Amino acid sequence: MEFDIAMTDELLATTRAVRKRLDLDRPVPRAVITECLNLAVQAPTGSNSQTWRWVIVEDADKKQALADLYRQAASTYLEAAGEAAAERGDDQTNRVMGSALYLAEHLQEVPVHVIPCLEGRPPADTPPAMMAGFYGSIFPAVWSFQLALRARGLGSALTTLHLVHEKEASALLGIPDDVLQVALLPVGYTRGTDFKRAERPPVENIVHWNQW
Amino acid sequence: MEFDIAMTDELLATTRAVRKRLDLDRPVPRAVITECLNLAVQAPTGSNSQTWRWVIVEDADKKQALADLYRQAASTYLEAAGEAAAERGDDQTNRVMGSALYLAEHLQEVPVHVIPCLEGRPPADTPPAMMAGFYGSIFPAVWSFQLALRARGLGSALTTLHLVHEKEASALLGIPDDVLQVALLPVGYTRGTDFKRAERPPVENIVHWNQW
Repeated sequence: MEFDIAMTDELLATTRAVRKRLDLDRPVPRAVITECLNLAVQAPTGSNSQTWRWVIVEDADKKQALADLYRQAASTYLEAAGEAAAERGDDQTNRVMGSALYLAEHLQEVPVHVIPCLEGRPPADTPPAMMAGFYGSIFPAVWSFQLALRARGLGSALTTLHLVHEKEASALLGIPDDVLQVALLPVGYTRGTDFKRAERPPVENIVHWNQW
Repeated sequence: MEFDIAMTDELLATTRAVRKRLDLDRPVPRAVITECLNLAVQAPTGSNSQTWRWVIVEDADKKQALADLYRQAASTYLEAAGEAAAERGDDQTNRVMGSALYLAEHLQEVPVHVIPCLEGRPPADTPPAMMAGFYGSIFPAVWSFQLALRARGLGSALTTLHLVHEKEASALLGIPDDVLQVALLPVGYTRGTDFKRAERPPVENIVHWNQW
């Protein structure tokens, strides 16, 4: 297949973190989630380990409990981060924090929570070389999942704040002790699909050719 | 823009780790790398931190030195992993390891090495919640970069083995101590573009609805 680069670029550039524009009233069929997961697991893993697991939460009580855990971790942090950003004149980050606070308030209303996990929990003294291989074996799949959603008119956001209370979340969902949660993605259809590229500083600022 | 789902699915499903089919003779223009990086940095980061840096190595001597470091870490590991996979009848992983050994032998010949980095090095006792936020702020961008390459007829592979000798690699490239390398991607045009989906077990095996 020849790729239409304008289209694939649009996918990569406009899959934004969607928080305020998730449609809280439109149900998400399981078939759509499964379709996107089938694409996600085509992503690479270190040594072809494929040790991913995906917990999908639709149950209202469990979403409420997850949202409560999320808010416990989020509220103080997000407000402080937003204020700090505003003080240093970083309006984009301040907006992001406002949007994240909105999401925290409404998390239980989002149709589906997706929690990607890895089997095996790296010990605290794991060297960075192995840590990169470990997390590098799940976040490409997570991002593929989000890109696949975007192509279908759905949105999500990569959040990690509930992990502060990972133990409680694992107890709630029956996740075994040796399985590590790595994120929580609220998933829903988006209200409209006209997402734009984010403003970014020129890549020249962050690229080093042959020498730092 | 309406997405052509068949096309975007093809991109997500057929961006394979390319090791044996990298064209070692065809140069990669800087403009292509920059184009793909401009897409990569549209990916999300925790708290909108955008603390990524990208070191791009084209210099023959430096690629040789990186390949030597890579081989020091790789050769024993890859052979053992391949044999273990063959013994348990996992032919796919055995093939992957054979392909990885091929790459290790030819790494210095690959036109470009791309090393994504993060500013700030998490201390060893960083809790998993923060570790996920940290690595989750670079691997989506890395994967976007690889997807953008694929759409343009180039290939890459996400490797982490040289990180065993990260310190030596940082010295070679002048990367500051507080900057963490997270991977090394060999990048080149691919010989042919007819990559297929990988065989994967049914996702039903690894998905849990509402309860593990």
